[in-house]
Amino acid sequence: MGINEFAKRAPMGWNSYDYYDTTVTEEEIKANARYMAENLKDFGYDYVVIDIEWYSNDAGSRRHEYQYIPFGDDELDGYGRLQPSPKRFPSSADGSGFKSLADYVHSLGLKFGIHIMRGISRQAAHNRCPIHGSSFTCDQAADAWSICGWNPDMYGVRNNEAGQAYYDDLIAMYAEWGVDFIKCDDICDSFMYPDGHRIVFSGYEETKMIHRAIEKSGREIVLSLSPGPAHVDRDFFYEENANMWRITDDFWDDWRLLKEMFWRCETWNGRVSKGNYPDCDMLPLGHLGHGFGNERISNFSDDEIRTMMSLWCLFGSPLMIGAELTKLTDKELSFLTNKDLLAVMDGDHRGLQVYRDDEKAIWVNTDEKGTECFVGLFNLTDEEREIECSKDSIGVKAYNMPSATEMIKDVWNGTESEGNIPEVIKATVPAHGTVVYRFY
Amino acid sequence: MGINEFAKRAPMGWNSYDYYDTTVTEEEIKANARYMAENLKDFGYDYVVIDIEWYSNDAGSRRHEYQYIPFGDDELDGYGRLQPSPKRFPSSADGSGFKSLADYVHSLGLKFGIHIMRGISRQAAHNRCPIHGSSFTCDQAADAWSICGWNPDMYGVRNNEAGQAYYDDLIAMYAEWGVDFIKCDDICDSFMYPDGHRIVFSGYEETKMIHRAIEKSGREIVLSLSPGPAHVDRDFFYEENANMWRITDDFWDDWRLLKEMFWRCETWNGRVSKGNYPDCDMLPLGHLGHGFGNERISNFSDDEIRTMMSLWCLFGSPLMIGAELTKLTDKELSFLTNKDLLAVMDGDHRGLQVYRDDEKAIWVNTDEKGTECFVGLFNLTDEEREIECSKDSIGVKAYNMPSATEMIKDVWNGTESEGNIPEVIKATVPAHGTVVYRFY
Amino acid sequence: MGINEFAKRAPMGWNSYDYYDTTVTEEEIKANARYMAENLKDFGYDYVVIDIEWYSNDAGSRRHEYQYIPFGDDELDGYGRLQPSPKRFPSSADGSGFKSLADYVHSLGLKFGIHIMRGISRQAAHNRCPIHGSSFTCDQAADAWSICGWNPDMYGVRNNEAGQAYYDDLIAMYAEWGVDFIKCDDICDSFMYPDGHRIVFSGYEETKMIHRAIEKSGREIVLSLSPGPAHVDRDFFYEENANMWRITDDFWDDWRLLKEMFWRCETWNGRVSKGNYPDCDMLPLGHLGHGFGNERISNFSDDEIRTMMSLWCLFGSPLMIGAELTKLTDKELSFLTNKDLLAVMDGDHRGLQVYRDDEKAIWVNTDEKGTECFVGLFNLTDEEREIECSKDSIGVKAYNMPSATEMIKDVWNGTESEGNIPEVIKATVPAHGTVVYRFY
Amino acid sequence: MGINEFAKRAPMGWNSYDYYDTTVTEEEIKANARYMAENLKDFGYDYVVIDIEWYSNDAGSRRHEYQYIPFGDDELDGYGRLQPSPKRFPSSADGSGFKSLADYVHSLGLKFGIHIMRGISRQAAHNRCPIHGSSFTCDQAADAWSICGWNPDMYGVRNNEAGQAYYDDLIAMYAEWGVDFIKCDDICDSFMYPDGHRIVFSGYEETKMIHRAIEKSGREIVLSLSPGPAHVDRDFFYEENANMWRITDDFWDDWRLLKEMFWRCETWNGRVSKGNYPDCDMLPLGHLGHGFGNERISNFSDDEIRTMMSLWCLFGSPLMIGAELTKLTDKELSFLTNKDLLAVMDGDHRGLQVYRDDEKAIWVNTDEKGTECFVGLFNLTDEEREIECSKDSIGVKAYNMPSATEMIKDVWNGTESEGNIPEVIKATVPAHGTVVYRFY
Repeated sequence: MGINEFAKRAPMGWNSYDYYDTTVTEEEIKANARYMAENLKDFGYDYVVIDIEWYSNDAGSRRHEYQYIPFGDDELDGYGRLQPSPKRFPSSADGSGFKSLADYVHSLGLKFGIHIMRGISRQAAHNRCPIHGSSFTCDQAADAWSICGWNPDMYGVRNNEAGQAYYDDLIAMYAEWGVDFIKCDDICDSFMYPDGHRIVFSGYEETKMIHRAIEKSGREIVLSLSPGPAHVDRDFFYEENANMWRITDDFWDDWRLLKEMFWRCETWNGRVSKGNYPDCDMLPLGHLGHGFGNERISNFSDDEIRTMMSLWCLFGSPLMIGAELTKLTDKELSFLTNKDLLAVMDGDHRGLQVYRDDEKAIWVNTDEKGTECFVGLFNLTDEEREIECSKDSIGVKAYNMPSATEMIKDVWNGTESEGNIPEVIKATVPAHGTVVYRFY
Repeated sequence: MGINEFAKRAPMGWNSYDYYDTTVTEEEIKANARYMAENLKDFGYDYVVIDIEWYSNDAGSRRHEYQYIPFGDDELDGYGRLQPSPKRFPSSADGSGFKSLADYVHSLGLKFGIHIMRGISRQAAHNRCPIHGSSFTCDQAADAWSICGWNPDMYGVRNNEAGQAYYDDLIAMYAEWGVDFIKCDDICDSFMYPDGHRIVFSGYEETKMIHRAIEKSGREIVLSLSPGPAHVDRDFFYEENANMWRITDDFWDDWRLLKEMFWRCETWNGRVSKGNYPDCDMLPLGHLGHGFGNERISNFSDDEIRTMMSLWCLFGSPLMIGAELTKLTDKELSFLTNKDLLAVMDGDHRGLQVYRDDEKAIWVNTDEKGTECFVGLFNLTDEEREIECSKDSIGVKAYNMPSATEMIKDVWNGTESEGNIPEVIKATVPAHGTVVYRFY
Repeated sequence: MGINEFAKRAPMGWNSYDYYDTTVTEEEIKANARYMAENLKDFGYDYVVIDIEWYSNDAGSRRHEYQYIPFGDDELDGYGRLQPSPKRFPSSADGSGFKSLADYVHSLGLKFGIHIMRGISRQAAHNRCPIHGSSFTCDQAADAWSICGWNPDMYGVRNNEAGQAYYDDLIAMYAEWGVDFIKCDDICDSFMYPDGHRIVFSGYEETKMIHRAIEKSGREIVLSLSPGPAHVDRDFFYEENANMWRITDDFWDDWRLLKEMFWRCETWNGRVSKGNYPDCDMLPLGHLGHGFGNERISNFSDDEIRTMMSLWCLFGSPLMIGAELTKLTDKELSFLTNKDLLAVMDGDHRGLQVYRDDEKAIWVNTDEKGTECFVGLFNLTDEEREIECSKDSIGVKAYNMPSATEMIKDVWNGTESEGNIPEVIKATVPAHGTVVYRFY
Repeated sequence: MGINEFAKRAPMGWNSYDYYDTTVTEEEIKANARYMAENLKDFGYDYVVIDIEWYSNDAGSRRHEYQYIPFGDDELDGYGRLQPSPKRFPSSADGSGFKSLADYVHSLGLKFGIHIMRGISRQAAHNRCPIHGSSFTCDQAADAWSICGWNPDMYGVRNNEAGQAYYDDLIAMYAEWGVDFIKCDDICDSFMYPDGHRIVFSGYEETKMIHRAIEKSGREIVLSLSPGPAHVDRDFFYEENANMWRITDDFWDDWRLLKEMFWRCETWNGRVSKGNYPDCDMLPLGHLGHGFGNERISNFSDDEIRTMMSLWCLFGSPLMIGAELTKLTDKELSFLTNKDLLAVMDGDHRGLQVYRDDEKAIWVNTDEKGTECFVGLFNLTDEEREIECSKDSIGVKAYNMPSATEMIKDVWNGTESEGNIPEVIKATVPAHGTVVYRFY
């Protein structure tokens, strides 16, 4: 089983972080899963992902001081494996972990994902817990000098037999639970941990160890690496060992970050392939920030949301919704379910940047069969602009430019007309906005 | 005319640097050109490139102190344009620059290239020479804070009207001379000039200015950027503005550098396309170092030369020979003219890395039509090794894997047999050596 | 003659920069000198210093673009020595340099100083001017890779015979002119030119070369090094080779800089000795900024000026006035001429910090004979504060604490009373202000 | 009680590290103490210091892997305070800590010192032990992001009430034990923990907290900070809070390190004062390295040992012997007990560097009364050299140069003659060696 045999198209789904931070509960997960099954599944969204610190019994209780409480009350089994907090996930109280919740998600036709921190519980290492199915103890797997810069829960895992035994056992347990997707954190941006500064960053080795453990588990678990920015010169490494890797630090509802994403996507231009997805991070629209003590509606304007959706899709990023799904308005839902735009997410389309400067960007996306072509015109300025580009400049960049097409559709306003791709493609584009044409 | 309309295959030719350093003369260029026409042209080699400081009248005269003499005796015209040293290039004594030499090279069916330093002569700036065809003077184009870290000849050119006027005029003069290839130096590796350290690195802007000037010139001049390493996150920028960019600092006949090139090629894996060639630098074989006062035969063993040729070709790098051509032995010539291997240099093949660790590397190269497949097995250790890989692992990586082939050829030993690609491809590979199979 | 045999007390005087920038003229220098002779000389001020680019004929003419014009119109003699601009300093038109102006300053009982840039004129190097009194030419003394980060006039001087010959000749010329003080710029803060970044910083060697040239000249020329911050770990080096060295980048009329100076003085605490003066930079009060196109009255409040004067004096910094002297008000003059405070500038007093935190600082200054003691209470907050300290805490720090004193004077408000140093010294101190007691 | 009221002269004594590493036992400490009482006390040596990890029950047991074992078997009381390992220090088995051993050392007329790591036991923090005498728990005092780069035992202590309570209690316990000297490690060289790299270095705040705790304890405990290099721009801070601070990383028996120490002493030149001692680290002579598994005789030659002793003394560093005392030869002992040289260690002498270049160094040391003068001539080259300097050059630097003296003694060879300080002081000095004259 190769890394590309699953995740044949970029994963789409929902992640609890943007709304719940560390506080999400079983009922909330279920409610969002139901919403997805009813309203989003038909459009390709099928991953339900529980983000950070589901093992914490006191998560969120010292919000004024900490996002992640040091020496907190974490649920830990006798083998040094963090378990769901039974306070928050009652079905785990019997020791079955997320099995019951995963079954529920699967019963809706969806897939089940969890967030983990790279490493092994510090508490488990100091307690010298045995590693299940091995003769090792957790202190033998832990590296006392490898700590995360922003979360105090774990020590990094050493690249030795004890360390691999720990990861093998951990992933086997997740497989048994029915986990389909692991978002592993503190593992991707090694710039946080520069060489020679006495703190060990073992993320590259740990990525390989987790990848190996997934292969051993026999379950098709998508591996997603965080946080970004990932290093483009390591692209080959990511492709070998993971399915998704973040190309940015946390993305939020701020135009400066959205504008910057065009630069990030240029950096990774041409690096999307089947099973390998540079990741622009969650889509922060709708209700956000509840668990952070700052519930709000996304700061993005409608035009900015269209720009975000268009860039993520034309580039080929995974689409993970960062909203409380049950509070989505019809309009917000419509941004997420544009059938024309989502056509490029079928696994057989490839996007490439045609042009970018400080004021505009142009992307093209074509399918492998050469039957259709999407062109996105993005206005990065604060004023309405006329944006144009020649058919030739697009043709030079596109993977598989169709020789001729018959229909032209404006993806966002829905207008449609007959006609081939014109020699000059142009549109009046609102500030921070986009116009995407589908030629087919 | 787009940047890709010329340089449809990776440039192949010869460059004077590795043998002559700064000292090459007109007769020496001609002799090498004649050799190329007679022995190499049929294999695709056609660029004859004069490397650094052809404008210096005293180049090489203070070898014990300087490679590039500060405040040296440079040939400068009244417009601040460096001219060939008439001492070394007598045909330029009438003020016609390299026109006569370029004509000679063209008469052999070859192409003519020159090296330039980014920027404008310091002397010309202090003398406030007029810029030909404009109302500007050279001091207006020069940036007094932009100097090269290793060569004292030039100031960087400012991104203003005077600067563009200077480059437009300069490239127009080169076009008139008949220049087909410009290797521009001190323009690619910005890490030499870190932000915030008071010395201006204007290489990115100057790349764009030179690109614009080439477009204005109306001549198909290939633009090659040095030195490396180029920055892979800037790939889109290089593709827009140049045809070749060095992915390494100067490459020489040292196994450590050759082994390291595997890592560099991994970094740029998948980044070769028509008109856009990440560049592994010259091929240092045969006689080297004469102009450096250190004439020698390349330190590379035969196996290392085969490895070098195989990697450059399977990856898709330009091939610029760094030898005194007239002194090549038959064996050395044979390394450069392996018809089977050079088949991948036709502009319609694409290479990709399949695997690399510290001990071995595997590359695949396929043509766009899907009719053939090259597999290179590289032994990076100091001992003979058996190396193998599965057909599947290659198929996952190759662009266009042929479904079935009939013949198997060992490219370097010439043996040939019938048969499809086997499920496991393997060979006994000498230390530092390579085995390349062609399946067709 | 040792470095300490002159400059037995910290130099006091006036510098043209803060008011005139690069534009001061002979008449303006004379007017300020006359003012000094009449109003300041009796208080110890006697240096008149012409700051940067007195050799520039076009200084200030492109203010909107440049403070220092690249490739500007500089006055240069045939030996590569910059000369006063005859436009601005008419008495130099006969080729006698600053001799006539220095004579005038001396006739007033004052001393004459000039600013220079480390290095040798770039123009002179490219012109290969002969070095007077030697067989060398300027290109042999110049380092083509040593340029200043902010001023384009010079190349650094190489540490070779040609370089020493250049400096010897230059300083001999200055000695002949009658120069008493050289403020040498771009020579002190090597952090501007980090190791390994390809631009040569030759400031340490050049400091030694200039020091040697001063010794050879036979004239007692005070050597002042700029810009700061100087590096405290190089203190021994500065002491050996110079009389003053800036401990700060340019200081201006901004409270944040003044508050920060307390930290800088702490760093250099105890490092002031006869002939060796860490330098807090000019005193920006009165009229400032004229030559910068921004004439204004200093932003400092009266309390801030008192704080500045008190810190500079109690620490032992040189006092160089940065105002247009002829425009000083009586009040401004009074800040500069506080006889009690200036008593510590006699060369026989030594100051030491007693205490500093973010809200207050306490300094003590005693004389070598142990007959008096100054205590400065500084309020670094934005509100009036009561500040106190114990006699014991001061005694622990002071060099030579008098065993008993009879009189107490408040230096700034002038009140005086009988009494020994009390056990607790205290005062109500205004925001940003100071109270200084003299016990004697 | 001020910081300077104890440690009126630079501490002299013995430290267990250089011979025992982490493994020293009670009997070994006692044996060395007895040796000191009998052979060294009369010369001023009186501190007996137990170095790192006296709380470890398994120290040294995994020498091939670790100097400091992660997750090791440390002796910890119920209040999170590390206790002496009862295996190694049997007298502590009753819970009285080092009290009994300190009593023994005191009974010999000596002083008792211990090494500690900055911070609080990681195990204690994860166990949330109560802090004795407070309502806090150890996790409240610990900073989960502050770890030592080379030792895994501790978390840094937070600058809050819990943290101060912890240190107050800890130092009170040490005071009760009878501790006279604390060498606190991982607290001095903040360059190990650069800003902005996500790992908290809390050493500055912890220094202040420990200083406060010592003041509260009411016991005169000398505070020594490690490792170096300390930062000279923080000198004022060290003076306020500690008695000794290392100016070097660990010093060993290597000429390169000894030669480098001359540069380090230049940096701290003039920074030695009563109670404040920049520290050149232990004197590695005699038997060394036993606990490291590498017992050896010091690599220093006799001349190098004389150079080391002379520099430490003339500069004014503490003198901590790094040998197994009981194995000292008579000759080794004689180097340590040169009465003439040790005269400068009485607390009333001050040393200053006169000159240093790459080949030689000259130091002067005078007493406060101006009755005597030591001059050290150091040969830093690998060949015998004649070294000389003028009386004048020494007089300029010395604190209190005697006007005339009557006797001249060569401190190391013991010859003595009548005579004043000559105008030129000179000697033939062996390679790596020194000649020290005492004029009195």
